[in-house]
Amino acid sequence: MRCVLISSSLDLRDYFGAELARIAPRVEVVDHAGGAADVRLALAWHPPDDAFERYPDLQAVCSIAAGVDNIVACPSLPPSVDVVRVVDPGQGQMMSGFIAWHAIGHQRGFAAFSAQQRDRIWQRRAQRRAKDVPVGILGNGEIGRRVAVDLAHLGFPVMSWSRTAKAISSASRSFHGPAGLAMMVSETEVLVNLLPLTPETRNILNGDLFGRMRRGGYLIQVGRGEHLVEAELLAALDSGQLAGAALDVFATEPLPAAHPFWRHPRIAITPHDASDVSISAVVTTLATTADAIRAGRRPPHAIDRARGY
Amino acid sequence: MRCVLISSSLDLRDYFGAELARIAPRVEVVDHAGGAADVRLALAWHPPDDAFERYPDLQAVCSIAAGVDNIVACPSLPPSVDVVRVVDPGQGQMMSGFIAWHAIGHQRGFAAFSAQQRDRIWQRRAQRRAKDVPVGILGNGEIGRRVAVDLAHLGFPVMSWSRTAKAISSASRSFHGPAGLAMMVSETEVLVNLLPLTPETRNILNGDLFGRMRRGGYLIQVGRGEHLVEAELLAALDSGQLAGAALDVFATEPLPAAHPFWRHPRIAITPHDASDVSISAVVTTLATTADAIRAGRRPPHAIDRARGY
Repeated sequence: MRCVLISSSLDLRDYFGAELARIAPRVEVVDHAGGAADVRLALAWHPPDDAFERYPDLQAVCSIAAGVDNIVACPSLPPSVDVVRVVDPGQGQMMSGFIAWHAIGHQRGFAAFSAQQRDRIWQRRAQRRAKDVPVGILGNGEIGRRVAVDLAHLGFPVMSWSRTAKAISSASRSFHGPAGLAMMVSETEVLVNLLPLTPETRNILNGDLFGRMRRGGYLIQVGRGEHLVEAELLAALDSGQLAGAALDVFATEPLPAAHPFWRHPRIAITPHDASDVSISAVVTTLATTADAIRAGRRPPHAIDRARGY
Repeated sequence: MRCVLISSSLDLRDYFGAELARIAPRVEVVDHAGGAADVRLALAWHPPDDAFERYPDLQAVCSIAAGVDNIVACPSLPPSVDVVRVVDPGQGQMMSGFIAWHAIGHQRGFAAFSAQQRDRIWQRRAQRRAKDVPVGILGNGEIGRRVAVDLAHLGFPVMSWSRTAKAISSASRSFHGPAGLAMMVSETEVLVNLLPLTPETRNILNGDLFGRMRRGGYLIQVGRGEHLVEAELLAALDSGQLAGAALDVFATEPLPAAHPFWRHPRIAITPHDASDVSISAVVTTLATTADAIRAGRRPPHAIDRARGY
C-alpha cells in the first residue's frame, strides 16, 4: 500500500526510514512532492494546511505519537479520513516514571535538600508519607490508567478524572464531568495533566482550577501547552497556592529564551521529553493500519473524529 | 514493666514521651540516672559504653530504627540480652520512594535537564527506558524486598543479593555469597545498599566493587556510612566508572562542613533522611517486646546476636 510521509517540522524519512524498510512489503513509502492518486495511507506530524489536498484516495493518517491534535486541526483533512494514534505500552511506563519522579520529589522536598547541600547545611526535614499526598490525574486513557496504577503502588492516594464516565479501577477513585472535576481537584495536592487537546480542554489548567486545589499543591503538565493559562500558573506560584510545577509541554516549542518560565525557581522545565513512543511502535502501527484498510476494517486506535481523540 | 530510655545523642523522652503514655499500663518509663534492679526493658539509641552496667535484670533492648548496630556495639551489653529492631511497613515504602526517585533520576538524566534549564537550553535528550537500567540491591530483608517489588513494578530489571540464600521472589533475581555478589554487580548499573552493618559488610562499597559494575553506574547508599570506602567512591566518580551517587548516610554525621562530598557535582546528599520509622511503630514495638518478656517468649524482631542483624 502506498504511504506518504508529511511533516512541516520533522524529517520523517530520517527518523523512521530504517525501520520502515522492515514493513516494506506491506507499506510502500512514496514522495510527498509527487502527490498522487492511489495513496491510501499517510504518516504525519504537524502537516501543512494544504497537505491532504492532493491525495483523493487517502483513507487513514497515522500520527507518530499518542497525541493527534496537530493532525485533526489540519484544514485540508477530509472528515471521512481515519486518524490513528500510536499506543505503546513502553510509553506509558516512561510517562509513569516521569510523573512518579516529580510526585516523589514534591512529597519529599528534594529541592530543599539540594538547596541545603549548596550551603553545606545538615538539617533533617520532616518527611511526609506518600499516603498523605493525594494525586489527581486529568485523563483516564491508556496512559492515565498506567500512571494511576503505578502511583497507587507507590502509596499515593490516586484519583482520576475523565470527560465521560469510565470503567471503575481499583487503583484510583474515578470522577467525570464538570462537577466531578471540581470535586476531585478540591482533594488534590499533585495535579497531573494527561488530557488530549480539544476545544473543551483548552485552557483547563487555569487560576480557578489551581485555586480549588490544596494550598501548596504541585502541577505536573505533560498534556499540551494549550491546556495551560500561563499567566495564571505564575500567579498561583507567586501566591503560594501552588508550591511548584513541572512543565514538559508549551504553547510555543521550543520555549522562547525570554520566557519567564525558564528562570522561575519553582518551575522545572523539560523539553517535551517526558515520554516518547518507540520508532518500532510507530512503524508497527502504520503496518497494522495498512492491513486494516486492505481488509476493509476500521484501523485499531483510530480516534473519534467528532470528539477529537 | 519498667523500661529505661538510654541515648547519648537524642532526648528519647522528648521524641517518644507523648506516645509512650499510650502504652503506660504495659510499659512504665523510669529514669536512667537511677539505675535499678527490676528494669527488664530499655529503649536505646547510641548508648554510652557503660550504659547497661547498672541493669542486672535487663532482658531486651529496643532500637528506635531498623538498624541496631549502635546497640550491638555497646561493650556493656550482656550477650544474653535480646536486641529488637523496629519493623515498620511505612518505612519500607518511604525508602522505596527515595530509591525510586534516584534510580529514575539517573535513568532519565534529570540532572542534565536542570543544567539545561539554568542556561535556557531547549535540547531533547535520548531517553532510556527502565528495562535497560538493571538495579542490584544489596540486602534482601523486609525493606530490600519491598524496594525490589516497587522497582520491578516501575520496569527496572531487579537483582537482590544477601549473605545467605533467601526465598526466591518473583520481583528480582536472587544472588548470595561472595561469588553471587560478583555476578550480580557485573550486571548492575544502579547499586542500592540496604545492608545491615556487621564486620563482614564494613567497607563493602569499595573500588573493587565499583570497578565490577557497568561503566557509568550509580550508587544509592542508604545503609550505614561505614559500608563505604569514601576515597574509593571519589576515585570511581573521577574516573567515570560511576556517573553519580546519592548518599544518605555517612561515617561521621552530621557530615563535616569541610568534607569533599558536599561540593561534589555528581553526589546528592541527604541528611540521613531517606526513611524513618514512625514514633507509633517504635512505641508499639516496645509494648509487644514487654508483652513477650512477660509471657516468657522471645520478642518478635529480636536479632540474631551472633550475626549482628
